[in-house]
Amino acid sequence: MTTAPLALDERAARADADDALAPLAERFVLPDGVIYLDGNSLGPLPAAVPPAVTDVVTRQWGTDLIGSWNDNGWWDAPLRIGDTIGRLVGAAPGQTVAGDSTSVHLFTALTAAAALRPDRRFLVTDPGHFPTDRYLAEAVARRQDRLEVRRIAPPDLDAFLAEEGDQVAVVSYAPVDFRTGELYDMAATTEAAHRAGALAVWDLCHAAGAMPLHLDAQEVDFAVGCGYKFLNGGPGAPAYLYVAHRHHTSFETPVTGWNGHANPFGADRDYSPAPGIARARIGTPPILSLLALEAALTVFEDVDLAQVRAKSMSLTEFFLRCATELLTPLGIESVTPPDPSRRGSHIALRHPHALGLTHALAQRGVIIDMRAPDLLRFGVNALYTTHRQLLTAARHLQEIMQESAYDPEPPRTGPVT
Amino acid sequence: MTTAPLALDERAARADADDALAPLAERFVLPDGVIYLDGNSLGPLPAAVPPAVTDVVTRQWGTDLIGSWNDNGWWDAPLRIGDTIGRLVGAAPGQTVAGDSTSVHLFTALTAAAALRPDRRFLVTDPGHFPTDRYLAEAVARRQDRLEVRRIAPPDLDAFLAEEGDQVAVVSYAPVDFRTGELYDMAATTEAAHRAGALAVWDLCHAAGAMPLHLDAQEVDFAVGCGYKFLNGGPGAPAYLYVAHRHHTSFETPVTGWNGHANPFGADRDYSPAPGIARARIGTPPILSLLALEAALTVFEDVDLAQVRAKSMSLTEFFLRCATELLTPLGIESVTPPDPSRRGSHIALRHPHALGLTHALAQRGVIIDMRAPDLLRFGVNALYTTHRQLLTAARHLQEIMQESAYDPEPPRTGPVT
Repeated sequence: MTTAPLALDERAARADADDALAPLAERFVLPDGVIYLDGNSLGPLPAAVPPAVTDVVTRQWGTDLIGSWNDNGWWDAPLRIGDTIGRLVGAAPGQTVAGDSTSVHLFTALTAAAALRPDRRFLVTDPGHFPTDRYLAEAVARRQDRLEVRRIAPPDLDAFLAEEGDQVAVVSYAPVDFRTGELYDMAATTEAAHRAGALAVWDLCHAAGAMPLHLDAQEVDFAVGCGYKFLNGGPGAPAYLYVAHRHHTSFETPVTGWNGHANPFGADRDYSPAPGIARARIGTPPILSLLALEAALTVFEDVDLAQVRAKSMSLTEFFLRCATELLTPLGIESVTPPDPSRRGSHIALRHPHALGLTHALAQRGVIIDMRAPDLLRFGVNALYTTHRQLLTAARHLQEIMQESAYDPEPPRTGPVT
Repeated sequence: MTTAPLALDERAARADADDALAPLAERFVLPDGVIYLDGNSLGPLPAAVPPAVTDVVTRQWGTDLIGSWNDNGWWDAPLRIGDTIGRLVGAAPGQTVAGDSTSVHLFTALTAAAALRPDRRFLVTDPGHFPTDRYLAEAVARRQDRLEVRRIAPPDLDAFLAEEGDQVAVVSYAPVDFRTGELYDMAATTEAAHRAGALAVWDLCHAAGAMPLHLDAQEVDFAVGCGYKFLNGGPGAPAYLYVAHRHHTSFETPVTGWNGHANPFGADRDYSPAPGIARARIGTPPILSLLALEAALTVFEDVDLAQVRAKSMSLTEFFLRCATELLTPLGIESVTPPDPSRRGSHIALRHPHALGLTHALAQRGVIIDMRAPDLLRFGVNALYTTHRQLLTAARHLQEIMQESAYDPEPPRTGPVT
């Protein structure tokens, strides 16, 4: 006698009932009636943030005024918050700084990494990398005559390194593909880069906070990531830059702002970099946004990222099952790898009317996003997403498809799609 | 019969009674018992900011979530707020962007300006320029073999241009000296740079919001400034970058982040700059800090900057008189020009125990700052400073000096002096 496969409702109920992380959802303010599956783009509001921001604005700025640079720890915030993020990405203290945008930090990382391999020609990056990563690789290469960008897809990297490895200065990749959600092997890629004598620069935007990362243990050289996706730091939250200890005496930053000076209040004649990661500070960071990020990071207190990863895989596994049963018959296919160890924390489904479907879902309170031209992205966050929400989202999409209840060519509603 | 000179108390009372701008102080939250003379470093909290920030955090982020990029105008914020700042610095719309730190914007400005004069050798800057400006000039020059920094004090610029003008690519100055408060002639310097065929880059940090500026009328090429001094945008508030219309088709940015792409959501293969000033956007800006700045800028609504400037000159004139009568006999000298047309909006007094005196004043509720090694800076802001406050501050300093009620070598209380 065989057991009948569990129906989707029962699977969702069982998985949610067994979920040890379920209480963490209370650490967020999530609007009623909304299923929020876009935390991979903008994390929702942590409950700790509003009182923290009010304190920063009214007491620290309003009352303590300029004295807050010392008395309320504003000056130390970039390194203090960097260390807090470091704990989430496997970095020991003193290697991570927060404060500028991902783009600016990445510009520093790529420039500094390339300069540490002055006799090599290639800056290798993923042709499917997030646009800013590709554009910045080109920008960094253009400013140094010897450098040339090679766009090599992750599966082809080994072959490229075998051929041209001794000319590779830097490899720049992301562990999670921002479109498909595919998860790459950071350890193997970093090791391959090192075997070739190159440095590894990683963009953690779509991974940090969603899974354990091991920057120190994997001997990553440089890494960057944003503060507003799985770290829930708020819109445009400051990003961070990790530089491994072993590069601290030799790396040079291209944008030598006064905050990174060894003697920032000395008004010295010439630039002299601060010791350690502090030299990667640039100008005065946006304190309100930075301290909002710090408050947001408290949601990770006492949270085991291995558990977060396990639940994330359970969620994406379940959503893929929902998609297979409910949506594939209607012509929607997943482009995310079925192997859970090769998935990040979002699922991408392909449909030519992705934008119209995204809008129709939003009207039913299911918030996802799309990436041109045809991908619907469903982000899960183990800190607050439930299996039940994913089933509900899939059923809404099924209904929308069955009833053709969407505009195949919706009007643009603003600059952001 | 001659009139006896008015006593300081009566002068202060008359000037404050005649002050048409006095009601503007209500637009700020100033703590009781504090005389705040450090708005040239960190502007105080505008009353409009706390409710605006609460709205951004709880409604826009917490409830509207990702939709706020369109629905609450987040995406357009850098250009919208840039235009608002533009009105304060004499820039017509479409030439100013806000979002990164002054250092990052200045790196863009210097790099872009130098590239527009590819056949010239010198990047000229003030040896007394704010440190980050000097360091960044060196950093930009170091990355382009042909470029060399020349540090020429403003009074010597004409002679240098007469000698080497045809080799000058860029001149980079500030209208107000951050130490002495001396005000330079932006129009004359810009014109001299142009006569030599060079471009003019201005750092407006210590001028914008304190006096009328005329970027368009004076044909300035590039300008930057911070959001947190006389613009009162909060700690580390985003800075801004102005690029004159005539350079919009030719200027190139060094940090090609995706926000500055012509098609930011298209994930195009290559970088293609957005038209106009939008190409100077880099990564996602810190929205909480940026929208706090926007709320802060409402204090300038219906405010005539010519009136602000007139009151600022009255305040600094009066404080210099107080200093002459009360402090000079005790060995404190002003290093700020006595000619009001050559003063910005702060007065710098010199004393070898500047740090100890600053601390002693703070204990009496008079907040100023010092710049190493020996300058006490008293910033006035016509939007909320009174003549009476300046007299009280001078009297406190007089008492502290007379009673030697200060520590000549105070202990360091934190990283920030």
